[in-house]
Amino acid sequence: MYQEQYFLTIRDINYGNHMDHLALLNYLHETRVRFLRKSGYSEIDVDGLGTGLVVAELQCNYRKECFYGEKITVKMNLELLSPMKLRLNYQVTKNEGEVAANAIIRLAFLDRNKKVVVVPQWLQNLAKG
Amino acid sequence: MYQEQYFLTIRDINYGNHMDHLALLNYLHETRVRFLRKSGYSEIDVDGLGTGLVVAELQCNYRKECFYGEKITVKMNLELLSPMKLRLNYQVTKNEGEVAANAIIRLAFLDRNKKVVVVPQWLQNLAKG
Amino acid sequence: MYQEQYFLTIRDINYGNHMDHLALLNYLHETRVRFLRKSGYSEIDVDGLGTGLVVAELQCNYRKECFYGEKITVKMNLELLSPMKLRLNYQVTKNEGEVAANAIIRLAFLDRNKKVVVVPQWLQNLAKG
Amino acid sequence: MYQEQYFLTIRDINYGNHMDHLALLNYLHETRVRFLRKSGYSEIDVDGLGTGLVVAELQCNYRKECFYGEKITVKMNLELLSPMKLRLNYQVTKNEGEVAANAIIRLAFLDRNKKVVVVPQWLQNLAKG
Repeated sequence: MYQEQYFLTIRDINYGNHMDHLALLNYLHETRVRFLRKSGYSEIDVDGLGTGLVVAELQCNYRKECFYGEKITVKMNLELLSPMKLRLNYQVTKNEGEVAANAIIRLAFLDRNKKVVVVPQWLQNLAKG
Repeated sequence: MYQEQYFLTIRDINYGNHMDHLALLNYLHETRVRFLRKSGYSEIDVDGLGTGLVVAELQCNYRKECFYGEKITVKMNLELLSPMKLRLNYQVTKNEGEVAANAIIRLAFLDRNKKVVVVPQWLQNLAKG
Repeated sequence: MYQEQYFLTIRDINYGNHMDHLALLNYLHETRVRFLRKSGYSEIDVDGLGTGLVVAELQCNYRKECFYGEKITVKMNLELLSPMKLRLNYQVTKNEGEVAANAIIRLAFLDRNKKVVVVPQWLQNLAKG
Repeated sequence: MYQEQYFLTIRDINYGNHMDHLALLNYLHETRVRFLRKSGYSEIDVDGLGTGLVVAELQCNYRKECFYGEKITVKMNLELLSPMKLRLNYQVTKNEGEVAANAIIRLAFLDRNKKVVVVPQWLQNLAKG
């Protein structure tokens, strides 16, 4: 399980005066990038061999309104659906653990010729463990 | 069925030099707002009585990479899941009809006190028709 | 002098793989909003009487490229140009004080009827002090 | 003189229910990219030799509030300040020619080693003409 915290900023707030439903998704993305970076990788080179990742599917259930300045916690874990398919399960909470949203992101991995390849071994290991 | 066309702009393009997966979702949002506006309403007042809508759930399957300057077509139709639940079904195509993405957005409707209310009648009618 | 720190996130990075020139400006905005909030106000109600502020002019000189994950410091001070005109002077630094950008934002204040009014007294006092 | 037209979209609108001051700047950027593209180039390769451009300075004066769905016209012309410095002068109008904003963007040109180089000849020619 990987976790990050963020304070909602003014660019997250839309004309309804609450967090935009799409603004939330940026924090899922940022969490993924920080996780990769702490392992020495990036979305563009996820294994040191030039394999990249793309989002194949995204699902999000919105449960609570969020507001400017609130602190949210994004928890993420990895689930291997098949050798080619990695799923990230996200939970976003605010305040004392209230669930603001649940989300799933399925990733695909592409080699330098944009051919789909298996999930890099280190991610498979983390997903299994 | 409601439909809009857009040209992808430079703010849609991310560091992978293709459309960001979240940028696509802005076009679903814009299509929804244009549809409401053509009917004389907005997300903040969807029935002339101050009822607002919020996104309760979002799903998107990404099928094709999209690039700067490409023209995309967003088709949207309405499906009534229950008197309280309206689902928007989206298909995003590019070029000669290649499917770039499919998406579903489930909406909830809130009165001025943020209490969930039934789908406004005119939307129920369109969803049924 | 008011000051905030930020870590650059993935949505700040554009297709040149560095911080977008417009992404930087969000941090100037966020700094202004945090400053107002710590004083108990917001852009929409800057004095407790419903006076709002708008950006009348913005200037930014870009000095250094910035990259994902870098920590930037935004310093802001207030300068009263006239009873109607408040200027915010910004300096953005990274690492050990390298200047990444200098910026100026001139604000105008509007009452509820969108008529330009004088700079609220508490801001005038801070600008003078 | 180069010109483009845009309809303001929902992601341009902020919690003040009008166009965000930073949203406007995206349209200056998009206009520049379209102009380059029509000449066969991009910001990353502005002369077919791998020379890139970066924004060195940006100034914008905001004159009129803009709202969702409004059509804006962005006019841009080129002014050569010195062999190394190109300035883009922008005027943004809405409705029947009301000026919404005036802006200036000064560009610098960098070779593949990020060394500043002269303005590409074809742009110098256009700026002079």
